[in-house]
Amino acid sequence: MSRQFTAHVRVTLKPGVVDPQGRAVLGALQALGFAGVADVRVGKWIAVTLTAESEDAARGAVDAMCRRLLANPVLEDYRFELTAGAGERP
Amino acid sequence: MSRQFTAHVRVTLKPGVVDPQGRAVLGALQALGFAGVADVRVGKWIAVTLTAESEDAARGAVDAMCRRLLANPVLEDYRFELTAGAGERP
Repeated sequence: MSRQFTAHVRVTLKPGVVDPQGRAVLGALQALGFAGVADVRVGKWIAVTLTAESEDAARGAVDAMCRRLLANPVLEDYRFELTAGAGERP
Repeated sequence: MSRQFTAHVRVTLKPGVVDPQGRAVLGALQALGFAGVADVRVGKWIAVTLTAESEDAARGAVDAMCRRLLANPVLEDYRFELTAGAGERP
């Protein structure tokens, strides 16, 4: 029987890859007076709700989604947590 | 003495707010053959490295950053975890 799972995927630029969006946010925060901010890195957070036969099957499917679409393996790292059931938040 | 902290901020659209990016990713995943995918929501993940006098001060600063710049309070929710030290990952 198929069961529902939710994967929370975090996609981040690999360390060392220049992050223009992070630099822009850093500059904006400093301009707003947040003097203590030293660095900002911006990534994506993606919640995927799916049905699968088992937790292993769901995990394999989400890993394939990350490799094929959600992350650019040259520039980005990804990691995800899988929970049973629906819902945007763990 | 100032200490360094890292905040991992997750910014997500509020439930009920239409997510065109998520719909586009959902369609692309289904077109790739991932038939079990039912829903996708896309948000931002932001790592902020900062110095502050105390953990409470750091937490207050990050909350102010979220309210003033990182999240749009009308459309988005945010939550963050604060850890001592530098580093992109908890």
